[in-house]
This record gives sequence, structure tokens and C-alpha cells, in this order.
Amino acid sequence: MKTTRTETDSFGPIEVPADSYWGAQTERSIENFPFGPREQMPLEIVHALGFIKQAAARVNARIGGLDPNIAEAIQQAAAEVARGDLDNQFPLVIWQTGSGTQSNMNANEVIAGRANEKLTGNRGGKEPVHPNDHVNKGQSSNDSFPTALHVAAACSVNSRLLPALRTIQAKLSELSQRWDGIVKIGRTHLQDATPLTLGQEFSGYAQQVADDIDRVEGVMPRVYRLAQGGTAVGTGLNAPKGFGEEFAKEIANLTRLPFTSAPNKFAEMAAHDTMVELSGVLNVIAVSLTKIANDIRLLGSGPRSGLGELILPENEPGSSIMPGKVNPTQAEMLTMVAAQVMGNHVAVTVGGMQGHFELNVFKPLIGANVIRSINLLSVGAESFTKRTLDGLEANENRISELMGRSLMLVTALAPEIGYDNAAAIAKHAHKTGKTLKEAGLELGLVDEQTFDRVVKAENMIGR
Amino acid sequence: MKTTRTETDSFGPIEVPADSYWGAQTERSIENFPFGPREQMPLEIVHALGFIKQAAARVNARIGGLDPNIAEAIQQAAAEVARGDLDNQFPLVIWQTGSGTQSNMNANEVIAGRANEKLTGNRGGKEPVHPNDHVNKGQSSNDSFPTALHVAAACSVNSRLLPALRTIQAKLSELSQRWDGIVKIGRTHLQDATPLTLGQEFSGYAQQVADDIDRVEGVMPRVYRLAQGGTAVGTGLNAPKGFGEEFAKEIANLTRLPFTSAPNKFAEMAAHDTMVELSGVLNVIAVSLTKIANDIRLLGSGPRSGLGELILPENEPGSSIMPGKVNPTQAEMLTMVAAQVMGNHVAVTVGGMQGHFELNVFKPLIGANVIRSINLLSVGAESFTKRTLDGLEANENRISELMGRSLMLVTALAPEIGYDNAAAIAKHAHKTGKTLKEAGLELGLVDEQTFDRVVKAENMIGR
Amino acid sequence: MKTTRTETDSFGPIEVPADSYWGAQTERSIENFPFGPREQMPLEIVHALGFIKQAAARVNARIGGLDPNIAEAIQQAAAEVARGDLDNQFPLVIWQTGSGTQSNMNANEVIAGRANEKLTGNRGGKEPVHPNDHVNKGQSSNDSFPTALHVAAACSVNSRLLPALRTIQAKLSELSQRWDGIVKIGRTHLQDATPLTLGQEFSGYAQQVADDIDRVEGVMPRVYRLAQGGTAVGTGLNAPKGFGEEFAKEIANLTRLPFTSAPNKFAEMAAHDTMVELSGVLNVIAVSLTKIANDIRLLGSGPRSGLGELILPENEPGSSIMPGKVNPTQAEMLTMVAAQVMGNHVAVTVGGMQGHFELNVFKPLIGANVIRSINLLSVGAESFTKRTLDGLEANENRISELMGRSLMLVTALAPEIGYDNAAAIAKHAHKTGKTLKEAGLELGLVDEQTFDRVVKAENMIGR
Amino acid sequence: MKTTRTETDSFGPIEVPADSYWGAQTERSIENFPFGPREQMPLEIVHALGFIKQAAARVNARIGGLDPNIAEAIQQAAAEVARGDLDNQFPLVIWQTGSGTQSNMNANEVIAGRANEKLTGNRGGKEPVHPNDHVNKGQSSNDSFPTALHVAAACSVNSRLLPALRTIQAKLSELSQRWDGIVKIGRTHLQDATPLTLGQEFSGYAQQVADDIDRVEGVMPRVYRLAQGGTAVGTGLNAPKGFGEEFAKEIANLTRLPFTSAPNKFAEMAAHDTMVELSGVLNVIAVSLTKIANDIRLLGSGPRSGLGELILPENEPGSSIMPGKVNPTQAEMLTMVAAQVMGNHVAVTVGGMQGHFELNVFKPLIGANVIRSINLLSVGAESFTKRTLDGLEANENRISELMGRSLMLVTALAPEIGYDNAAAIAKHAHKTGKTLKEAGLELGLVDEQTFDRVVKAENMIGR
Repeated sequence: MKTTRTETDSFGPIEVPADSYWGAQTERSIENFPFGPREQMPLEIVHALGFIKQAAARVNARIGGLDPNIAEAIQQAAAEVARGDLDNQFPLVIWQTGSGTQSNMNANEVIAGRANEKLTGNRGGKEPVHPNDHVNKGQSSNDSFPTALHVAAACSVNSRLLPALRTIQAKLSELSQRWDGIVKIGRTHLQDATPLTLGQEFSGYAQQVADDIDRVEGVMPRVYRLAQGGTAVGTGLNAPKGFGEEFAKEIANLTRLPFTSAPNKFAEMAAHDTMVELSGVLNVIAVSLTKIANDIRLLGSGPRSGLGELILPENEPGSSIMPGKVNPTQAEMLTMVAAQVMGNHVAVTVGGMQGHFELNVFKPLIGANVIRSINLLSVGAESFTKRTLDGLEANENRISELMGRSLMLVTALAPEIGYDNAAAIAKHAHKTGKTLKEAGLELGLVDEQTFDRVVKAENMIGR
Repeated sequence: MKTTRTETDSFGPIEVPADSYWGAQTERSIENFPFGPREQMPLEIVHALGFIKQAAARVNARIGGLDPNIAEAIQQAAAEVARGDLDNQFPLVIWQTGSGTQSNMNANEVIAGRANEKLTGNRGGKEPVHPNDHVNKGQSSNDSFPTALHVAAACSVNSRLLPALRTIQAKLSELSQRWDGIVKIGRTHLQDATPLTLGQEFSGYAQQVADDIDRVEGVMPRVYRLAQGGTAVGTGLNAPKGFGEEFAKEIANLTRLPFTSAPNKFAEMAAHDTMVELSGVLNVIAVSLTKIANDIRLLGSGPRSGLGELILPENEPGSSIMPGKVNPTQAEMLTMVAAQVMGNHVAVTVGGMQGHFELNVFKPLIGANVIRSINLLSVGAESFTKRTLDGLEANENRISELMGRSLMLVTALAPEIGYDNAAAIAKHAHKTGKTLKEAGLELGLVDEQTFDRVVKAENMIGR
Repeated sequence: MKTTRTETDSFGPIEVPADSYWGAQTERSIENFPFGPREQMPLEIVHALGFIKQAAARVNARIGGLDPNIAEAIQQAAAEVARGDLDNQFPLVIWQTGSGTQSNMNANEVIAGRANEKLTGNRGGKEPVHPNDHVNKGQSSNDSFPTALHVAAACSVNSRLLPALRTIQAKLSELSQRWDGIVKIGRTHLQDATPLTLGQEFSGYAQQVADDIDRVEGVMPRVYRLAQGGTAVGTGLNAPKGFGEEFAKEIANLTRLPFTSAPNKFAEMAAHDTMVELSGVLNVIAVSLTKIANDIRLLGSGPRSGLGELILPENEPGSSIMPGKVNPTQAEMLTMVAAQVMGNHVAVTVGGMQGHFELNVFKPLIGANVIRSINLLSVGAESFTKRTLDGLEANENRISELMGRSLMLVTALAPEIGYDNAAAIAKHAHKTGKTLKEAGLELGLVDEQTFDRVVKAENMIGR
Repeated sequence: MKTTRTETDSFGPIEVPADSYWGAQTERSIENFPFGPREQMPLEIVHALGFIKQAAARVNARIGGLDPNIAEAIQQAAAEVARGDLDNQFPLVIWQTGSGTQSNMNANEVIAGRANEKLTGNRGGKEPVHPNDHVNKGQSSNDSFPTALHVAAACSVNSRLLPALRTIQAKLSELSQRWDGIVKIGRTHLQDATPLTLGQEFSGYAQQVADDIDRVEGVMPRVYRLAQGGTAVGTGLNAPKGFGEEFAKEIANLTRLPFTSAPNKFAEMAAHDTMVELSGVLNVIAVSLTKIANDIRLLGSGPRSGLGELILPENEPGSSIMPGKVNPTQAEMLTMVAAQVMGNHVAVTVGGMQGHFELNVFKPLIGANVIRSINLLSVGAESFTKRTLDGLEANENRISELMGRSLMLVTALAPEIGYDNAAAIAKHAHKTGKTLKEAGLELGLVDEQTFDRVVKAENMIGR
């Protein structure tokens, strides 16, 4: 039988697991929102709450009249939360009160419970460190939780998304340069078109991701703006003057990211337009990566009955008897991830549009989806780079075989032998399945020397 | 200078074009919602309002105490609206009051104005036929407009969508049977797989559309339920007892569709779940058609550097010099249309979720999107059938060329010569680019007679 | 240091944890798709794979020539998977190969590994029970995994969603009846409108959910159709004749749900239209529940400055000093959950539209989102019923206070004292803030007796 | 009978209306895509094609060897298209070839037809000005049409969207200042909360729109990048060196917008990430405006049974007998428009993700949705400003009535009389329906003087 201890809130006493740091409000939330562990609040948001409580304790010690010993105990305990040392103390799920109050209280209770343990040897409780009066001092869930969303998003973007995008961008650029000399058939409407180089094709992908990086960086100044200091409705009631500004400096210091105090707290708490905007940028990235992964799996289709211009690396057994059948599993993963991000974006939009008056109460939904999308894209892009792009090879034989039998090159003959003759050659080639050269010679409309001199794909690639 | 006449409402007098049938409220809406003619309310909804006013006039004459002469004039004028004879009298846009009140008043005013013309020779006005007291008798915008959405959707589904789906389904079935004997390479993960017939491939498409037809038919009983009779808030205040039921019979009679009076009017006016459901079915159709159109354009890719298993009919000039380059323009149209339907579905969902209390005020948005989606899918599917499927040809040479050089057939050899030998043949073939037969003979692991006897794609298609 | 054992696949040997039942392919997938435990494949799909392997083993013993001892060991091990006894043996994530091959192999390996342990005492391996040759016999990932999606969805719908919907529907009906006599102000456009009863208002909600139940039941016949028997591309190559039909009977037996063999396997593997359709129905439910939860939280707004017609039960501490401030946390949870379902629906749609040829490779995405949506709606609706509807109270004082001062009732006076006088009373009341009665008496346009006789909200509710 | 003339293309002769300027390819597209006039390509895109052909003619004259007389005739005719003088010559619909080829040809044919008329007196034809050889010189649909999307979007953003956003932002700021002194109850979770000023509430709205303006401006540098110069596949084949750069300067000159030549043409033609990004910003604007419009209609709800803090201007007759019932029709319009923009965004996303190789063939879908969203938001925001915000009034009596009876102000008493006494007063007030002051005096826990000195909402608003 599991041992418990008694914690209390204004509803009365409640039993919590004896070894937990959390208190009554966390325990009640577990009971009230029975969604199970797979629906837990993302740890990135938990860690952000750790940073927030740490920063707040420092500011409260400096300008809020908080006892220095208590402040010190809080900030040490909060640092443990921020570092991820207490992850198992955050059992609450995404689907709770829409202000994230219960996750904020979870952080307050765990930090108080841990600080009390440090100070008294007894885990939990409200003495000497009180979850509300001390840990949450000068704060409200209404400003802390949206602050946590911005801090979590900013940290994830900087530590995961931007590195992943830079990695895939660099790889695509490298491939673009490596394959600069490989002339291949172009395709528009999925139909054969005039040639370009494989490097040019990849330069488009590299540009897309480079633009995506710019898009992310463009939204970050608004993500760095924090609601903290607005307290319950945005007026800052019960927070000392200057709390928001001091807090922003402190958390910038802790995270080494340029957070600022939002110029208007009402807007930051009542709406989450910037989260919707960030989600919109993640949606663009999903679109870019879908295009890139789709092209690569189509170019790698085969081995015999597909396009076959690229050779995909093998990461796991395909068919044991059928060599060359390499399933594009990383592309499948990446395009699935992208579809999820597009769906998450709609969830964020629907949540973002529904705020009422001083508070948007879809905060956990919004935060969880933005964080999940960042993580999915980050891991997805990195894995795709490492397990598909790093080992990707151009099938030069196949590329030049297709190039050689293309009919599009006939356009190069027109200035030399006239449009009508050129068209006749193409028609003959198409009808008989022959190459242009074979058809031209057979019809006697061009001689071999002229053909070889004129019909050069490498002259058609805009150099 | 345009001549006008004066019409009045409770706001006072206002000038309307002298030759218009509409009155003051329509004119005010034109001024208040300046979105321009491309954003006009779909005519299907206008025509449905015509049917509604016609049916209501008949019911009002029978059980509502409406003067028979007035009722007759109304029902004649309403029939003209229903037939589309007065389409140019409906200038109002989708983006108006969310109950559709102004479009309902537009119908009331035009019908009164036309009925008055019939009775007095003078166009417009409120004498002897009054837009509110007579044309709108026993009705409210709050029940008439949602009724119009259901009537318009039901008529469009029956007159356009189901016929279009049945046409494309029949064609796909026919192609499935026609091509039942053509064995081709299967493709999974875009990689070569075991064979199937082209007919089997098309049987999947035919099944998808057959299921779509079932889906549409499954939702119709709820679409046939009408809110009429609920009046302002669903209680039926100011409508005679039995109005809703009599109305439903009357409009069923006029449209020859099995409309019924909704069992609960509150739900029908305060929410539009059935429209969201219907939109969800349209979304499935969009998904089906995207899959089918994508496969067909990929199978028709080429002429030289694609898969080339299908030959698309040419509907317009492709490249003048490049024979065989047929852009899959109908597939492009159809997949674009499908993407629009998916977007419309989100708009309908967002509108459907936002009702407040007794009235959802996203009715015009919901109606306009559902009607547009029905039309886009109907015209799109019909055009694709006529301009792509009707002229579609199997490129049997190409199909058997790909089939012949496939490596997947090696699996048939394993029982005969052992798994290891079969794998060795496949590997040799893959490495050297040869066919399985060439590779097998070259390695001496199989003789020609055995190979020809055993390696038969037509034995691998599950017959 | 963690002990390992060596497992092999066609890629060669690989170390797996000694205490795991899984083998080489599972281990490789862990390495190739590093998304972490929060992204694991839903257990409902794992359990469905257990049922599938159990049913397949029985069929293989009967018509597939599988050794009875091996079949028995497989079906016992598979039953453990189906029961959830081996959940910790399924570490793979959603974001893997798009056919779900790796999760299918995970099931094959774990079941073989557990069966081998039963037969030999040694965990893991391929002797005497082989993951591919025996557990996967007559199957392919391409038919097993989509079968798992349908089985998982059908089980979740029946065990969780329908019961939850029936519970909330019954409660809403009960409240509708309980409050049948409470006349209240109606609201359209958020503006005061003619009255209805609180019971009528709730009857609309009850109808919405009743319709939702019909919608779910309408789609189930297609969900019960299984792809099993199609093997790699839908032709059934390598499966005995009749495998699909026998399998469907067996799994129907195991799950007590009326599964059938799909009439066309090509459609079931190449597309997932039925999953998109089911997701569309879940989207409707999300729309219904959003409307209901929104109304209830708006009606419960206050305690002093809101509408205040309903009193929400308190589930957790609101403000300790501020009585009557009960945050509608369950409504917030439910509307967040609904927003997620709408987002998931877009993800499913985007995945569903992108199949290529014989295989849609967005299966894990589609399955995971449908299952998650089912679970979120089920827990959400159940929790909302238990923690909001069960304790919901009508604030009758407030309701009749609002009713009493409403101006809408003036319409009842018009037949008695004339329209102009009635309007004058309303205008005077509006201007002075008085009740209609006060205003009428003050203006001398009606006497008290007449007023009390005529102005009765209870006569305006359509009874 | 309608007279026609014969035009030809590589398909052969076709009859076109005698008075049309368009030629054979336009006529064929009309027949091949029978969607009707409501689905026509947005005129903004047509006008952009006019600018493009005008700029191209100038560049072709300068560096492309185009005969100066022909160039002059083209640029004059193109200017007419750009100005909108020939709008009725553009009958083609959105749902055509996915590259927009037919609309590009429509422009080429109309401009040639009009230029020929200028030069020869004969409308239409290909002599002396040829649609392809001269008007389309150095261009391809594949670069011209995406250029048209960017030009159309940029012009619409600058001429319509940004002005509309600046107008509404200025108005919201003005209201924020005007109402800076009106203290009102705050609401979080729809429950009464601590006070703020009505001005502070509106400052949040003003900030949201100010941020939206920044968001739009942030994406414009990428919108200004043009694909022109890439021709068929991005290599610039058949365009003179420097064509793209010269073109960008020319069109910047014509439109007075800072267009540039895209640094990578492959990315601009094969994908439309920037259009998806712009659509994402429009989606944020839709979210912002929904929040604002929802708050305003809720605050304006009533007249007797709602919140009633704002008085909405009357734009059209509400109830003739019921004064004060003003339906928030502009808010309904604006939130419907926003829902459409969210749906359009999904359509754009689905189109944007589906490019293949060198060409995304969802261009008309993407362009039409972005342009429509811009227009809807522009007209919607402007109309809402003019018809709701301009006439909006604060209902100060109601606001202070609600403020006066709020229980939230009890928090101000706690420091003075102790937390327990304060809570007791609040509980008594809640139970009895009295004001805090009444309750406090009744309980004898505070005297009137102290109460009036301490309980001041204006001290709780963070000033």
C-alpha cells in the first residue's frame, strides 16, 4: 500500500503520495482531469516554469521584500525544475484549466515542497516556504503561464529548431554545389521539360530552408516579449512597480536569450497572436520539408520502374530478396511529421481565436501544440538529414540515360534546321520510341556532326 | 443619371433603383457590406428561399389565414425566384448579418415587390403584399435561412453532386473491367512491388467513389430535416401549430425531395452540425479524388522521363514542338478544387463551432462554403471524367516493358531454385542493369525453359 | 551496465536489451527515429496488433498449414499483447515508416520472442517461432497495419466514445426534462430575444449529441471492413484463398465486434478514406461539444457581472477570498480538447489525401490522430458530464429576474393596446431603465390587470 | 446569333466571339473548365499580368531585340489591362491548369489582340503582334504567373490591407485613450476579476493590430521577390541575361513598390512558401479580429439580459418594437470573414505543400485564396471600423453599476480589517445578493468611512 501525507487547500485536506513534492492543488487536478500520462504537459513548459520561478525569486528578493533565505531556497529548487531534475513531479496533463493555473500551481507546490525539504528536512507543505505567498509572489497564473509558453518556445527554437534547420540547409547547399555539374531533365506538370542541373534543383531546396530560417528569426522578437508583470488581468495589481522589466532581465540572464517585458500586458494575456504566428511559420517549414521530401522520394523511386535519379541510403532492411528496393522511410517520417504540424497549426488557430476579455483560456492547448510542432520538425529534419541526405547519391547513369533520350532538346535544333524540321524529328522520335538523334538521322534532316554540336543540354541551363 | 424610387423601413426612407424589385432593407445591406459582386450569396440559396416562400405562402393560405389572392401572388412570384428568373434582384453578399436576415429580407422584398407588380402594375412597395406581414408570415430569418441552407444543399447534392459521382464511378468501374487483363508492376512506398492488374488498381478508385456515394447518402436524412417552424428562437412563437410539418410536406412536393420537419428546432437553429457533417463528407470526397487524380497524373508522367503507363488525352495545346508532352491539366484542376474543399471544410468547422445560445450566426459562411464545395466537386469530377478518364489509354508497351524488367518477380523463382540462388540472380540483375532472365542465364542458376514457366506475373495477382 | 543479447536481420547483427522480447528490426527503428517516449505509437494500435496476430495464428493453423504447436504459442503470446501485458515491449514511435512496418515487425518480434520463451525458456530469437515466417504468415505490414487501425478505432469507439456520448446525452436529456418549467430569456445575436424554457435550450444540446451518436454509428460499417488478406499490394499474394474472410470471422469472435473482410482490398490499403470520414465525424462531435460547453460557461458567467443563469459546481479552489467565482475549468478542458480534435482532423485529411499507387504511407499519422481524438473526446465528455453537468444548477432567481425585466415581452401587448402604444412603452422602459410594467403604468397606456393577464412569458414558448 | 471570328492554335481553328480580344487558347480553356463566372480568376491577378506584360515589353525593347513599334503597342495595351479597362476580356476561372498557363495566355492573347487593333484596326489575331513571340517574349507561364501572384498580393496588401489595418488600429488606439478613465470589472475565465479601465482593455486590441501590421510588413520583402526571369524551369532559358533584374526594376517603377528579382528562381517556381507565409499572417489577423469582434459583441450584449457595457451603433433596423436590440451585424460579418480566411489558409497550405520538381501546379488556387483573404480582411476591417467602432459608446452607467456590485474589490479590505473578515463580508454579500458595502456594514466588520476610503477600484488598475 502506497503511503501518503495530507496536504490542504481551501477545499480542505487531501492525501498526496508521501514521496511527492507536490501538494493539494496538483493532486486535485490529477483527479479532475483523468487523461493519463501520454497527455502530460510538455516538459519544455515545466522547465520554463522553473526558470520563471527562479527569476521571480531573485526579483522578489531584490524589489519585492521576499526574505533572502526563502528566496534562495526557492531559486535553488526552481533551478532543479529548470534543469529537469524533478520532471517526475509534474504529472498534470495538457487538458486542465485553460489558464494553465494548475500547472503553475504544480510548479509552485513542487518548488515550495522541495525548498521546504532543503530548509527543514520535511518534504512538501507550506512552511516556511509557501507555494502562493512566496513562490508565486508578485505573479498570477495568468501572466506566468503565458510567460512559460514564450520561454519554452524560445528555448526550443534556439536549442533545437534553428540548429536542425541550419544543419539541413547546410547539407542541401553542399549537395547543390556537389551536383552542380550534373545536367538532368527538368519536369513541370510532372512532364518532361527543359534541362537543369541536379545542383540547381537542390539549390531551390536550400533556398527554401534558408528562407524558413529567416522566417523563424523574424518572429522571435515577438516571442521574446513576456507577459510577466501583468498579474491577474494585465494591470500588474499586487506586483511591485518594475517587476516585469526586472523579471525579463533576470530570465534573459538565466537563459541567455534576449527576453523583454511586453509593451502591453493586456494583449499578451488575452490573446496569443504571436504563438499563432509562430505556428504559422512552423506550418511554412512543414510545407517546405514536404516538398523537399516528396521530390527526393519520387526521384529515388524504383529501382526499375520509377524515376531512379537518386539512390537513397538504406537504413533498415527492405526486401531481403529484392536488392535496390529501399523504402524512403525517412521521407515518410518527415512528411507525416509535416502533416501533424499542419494539423497542430489549425488547433493553435482555433485556440488562439477564442480568448474572452482579459484572458485566453486555451493556453495549454496552444503551448503544447507549438512545442510539439517544434520538436517534431527539429527531430524530423535532423534525422532526415543524417539518414537520407548524408548518404544520398546521384544515379548519374540513370540521369544521363533519361537526359539522352529526352525529346525536349529538340528545341535546340530549331534555329539550325528550322522549326518544322525540328518538330518532324521530335514527332518521329516520339512515334517510334527512338532518340532524337536516331530519328533525325533516319529522316535525314540533320547530320551527326551538327546534331552533336548543337544538341547539348549543358547549354540550356542558363549559365 | 439612374432613376430611383423611395422605399422605407423603420430607419426611414431610402432610395432604391427604380427598376429593382427590392426594398429598403436590401438597399441598406448593400451599403453596409461593401464587398462587391464576386462575394454575392450563392444563387442556390436564393433559389431555395424562393421555394421556401412559395411553400410558406401555400401553408399560410391553408392554415395561417393568409388572403388567398395575396398567397397566390406570393407563390407565383416566389416560383420565379426559385426558377432563377429574378437572380439579378439578389445583390447581397455572403458577409452580412450572421443569421442571413438580410438575404431573407431580400427575398421577402423582391417577392412582395414582384407580387405587387402583378397585382397593381407598380413594382416594389408593401401594398397590397407586405414583405414581412405576408411573405415572411409565420417565419423568421432564424428558421427560414437555415432551412434555405438545407434545401439548397439537398438540391445541389441531388442535382449535381450525386450525378457527378455516379458518372465518375461508372467510368472508373468500366476502366477497371476494361483493363482487367493488363498485368503491371505494383508500387508501394513509391518502390517497385509485386504485380497487379491495371484493372485492379482502378477497382480501388471505383470502390473509393462508390463508398463516397454511400457517405453522401448516409448524411442526407439529416440534411432533409428543416428548421422551418421554429421562428425566432425555436419555440415556434407566431407560427400556427403544425406549420413546420405542413411546410415540410409542401416543399417536399415542390422539390420532389423527402424533406421533413426537424424533430428539435432548437438544435437546428443554434447549431449547424449537419452542415459540418456534410462538409466532412465533401472533405472525404476531396481526399478520394486527390488520390485518384494524383495517381493518374503520375502514371501519365513522361513522355520519356516519367512512369508513362497511362496516356492522357490532350485537351489543349501542350508544347507545339514537343509531341507527347500532355500536361495533366484536368488533374491539376481537380486537385486544386479538392484543396479548396479541404479549406472550405475548416471554414465551415470554425463557423459551426461558434454558435451562441439560440442562434448560430455564421449561417451565410457555412452555407456559402458547403454550396461552393458541392459545385466545385461536381463540376470538377464531371470535367475530369469527360476530359481525362473518357480518353485515357493504357500504354501497354510501356507497362509490359516495366513489368518485364522488374526484379520483384524473382520471388517466384525461390521455391524452384532456392532462396539464395534467387537472391543472387536479383542482385546480379540489379548490379548490371540486366533483366532477371538475362542475369539468371548468365549466372547459370536457371535455364530458359524453367524461367519462362515459373516467372509469370499473371500468376501473382491473386486470381 | 545494461546487458544485451544479439539479434540479427538482413542488415546483420545488432545488440538489443537482454530483457526485451523484441528483435533486430525494432531495435533499428528505435535508433532511426529518435523522437522519444512521448511520441510512442498509441497502445490501442499495439493491442489491435495483438488481436490480429492471434486471429491470424488461428487461421494459419486451420487453413495455412502452420504447425499447431507454433500456432498455439503464437496465439497465447499474441493474447498477452492484446491484453496489454506486454505494453512496455512496444517502444516504437508514430514517426516511422509510413506503412507501419516497424510496428508490425515489433509485434511480430515480441510475439515470436515471447512464444519462443514459452516453448524453449529462451527469450527472443527466431527459433522455433520466426517473426516473419510464422507470426506474420499470410500477412504483410501493408494489410496488417491498416487492419490494426480499423480494429483499434472500432474497439475505442465501442468501449470509450459511444459510452461517453451516451452518458452525456442522457444527462443533457435529463436536465432538459428537469428544467422544462423554467422560462428564461432567449438570446439571438447575443441580444435579448423571445423566451424559451431552460429545458428547451438543453433539449437542443441533447439532440446534438443524439445526432452525433447516429453519425458515429453510421460510419462504423465501413470501419468494420478490414484490409487483411490483401498482403503486399492488395492481390493477396502469398495468403491462402479465403484468408481475409476467415480472419475477419476470427477477429470478430475475439473482439465481439462485427468485423468483415473488405470487399476491395486495393482501396483499403492505398487510401484511408474511412479513417478520414471517421475523423470528420469526430470533428462534428468536437463542434457540438464546443457549442454546448461555450453556452454553459457563458450562462454560468459571473457571479455578479456575467449572465449568471447557471451555477457551476466547484471542483477545485477558485479564489479563496472571492466566493462564487467558479472557473469553468471543465468547459475549458472540453473546448481545448475539441480544438485539438479539429486540428487532428486536418492532419488526418492531409495524410489521407497523399497515398501513392498501392499504398498510403501516412498510416501511423492517421491512426495515431484518430485514436487520440477518440480518447480526448471520450475522457473529455465523460469528465465534463461528471464534473460539470452532474452538479449543474439553474439559478432560478437570476433567470426570473432577467425574464422579468426583459423588453421582449412587449410584443404580447401589441394585439391588446396596439403596436404603437406597445412600442412607446418599450422605448420608455429602455430609456429609463424601468421594467415594461412600470413604464406602461407610468405612461398610462396599460393597466396593471391587463398587463399581468397578457404579458406572460410562459405563453410564448410554443406549448 | 452571336457573330464569331476564327482563331487558331496548334490544335487547329476555333471560333471566338467576334468582339472579344482573346484568342484560341482562351476559348479552349472556357470550354475545358466550365465552372461559371463566379469562379473567375481574381481581377487583381489579371491586372498584375497587365503590369507584367507592360514591364516585359519595355525590357524586351531595351535588351531583348523586340521591335520598338511592337513593344510600344504591347505596353499600351498591357497598361489598359493593368488599369482594369479590359476586365471583361478575362473570362477564365481559377480552376484551370495549375501553372496558370491559360490565364497567362489569356493576357498574351488579349494584349496582342488589342495591340493589333491599335496597329491595324483589326481586333485579335497574331499579326503583327504575336501573343507568344512578342507579348510573352522572354517569359514562360511558369515564371510570369507566380510573378503575377506576388505583384497582385503586394499591390493588394499596400493599397487595401495595410490602410485598413492602420485605420482600425488608429481607431482602437483612440478609443483606448478616450476611455482611459473608465474603470470596469475585469473578466477572466468569463468570471468576474479585478478591475481595469475600458481604455486598458482597448489598448490590448490596439496592440494586437499594431503587431499585425508589423507582421505584414515583415513578410513583404519576400513577397517583393519575383520569379520572372526563370522562364520554364528556373534556368532562364530563352530569356536574355539580366532579364529578371531589368524586369524587377521596370515593374517597381510601374507600381512604385520595391520589387526585386528573386535570388533563386527554382525555389520561387517550384514552391510558394512565401504565399503560405503571407497566408499565415492573414490567419493571425483573422485571429486578432475574431477576438476583438467577439469581445465587443459580448460587451454589447443586451439590452437587458447581457453584459451591456458597450452600446453598439445601429446600422439597420433591428426589432421595430424592441428598442435597444441592436444586432452586432458588423461583428458577425467580421468573424465570418475571419473564419473564411482561416479556411483559405488551409487551402493555401494544402496547395503549397504539393509542388513537384520544378513547378508547383496549385498556383491559381494559392493566388486566388491569398487575394480573397486580403480583400475580405480589408473590407471587413474597414467596414467594422466605420460601422461599429466609429459609433461605439461606453455605457458608463452599466459599467459602474457592475463595478459597484462586484465582490472582487473585497481584496482591498484585507490589509485593513484582516483576510478572514474580508472573506466573511464577501461570503455574506454573495449569499444575500448585497453589495460589499451593504454586507460589510450589516456585519459590522467595517465602517462606511473606512470602506469608502479603501475600496476604490481606481486604485487597483496598476497606475
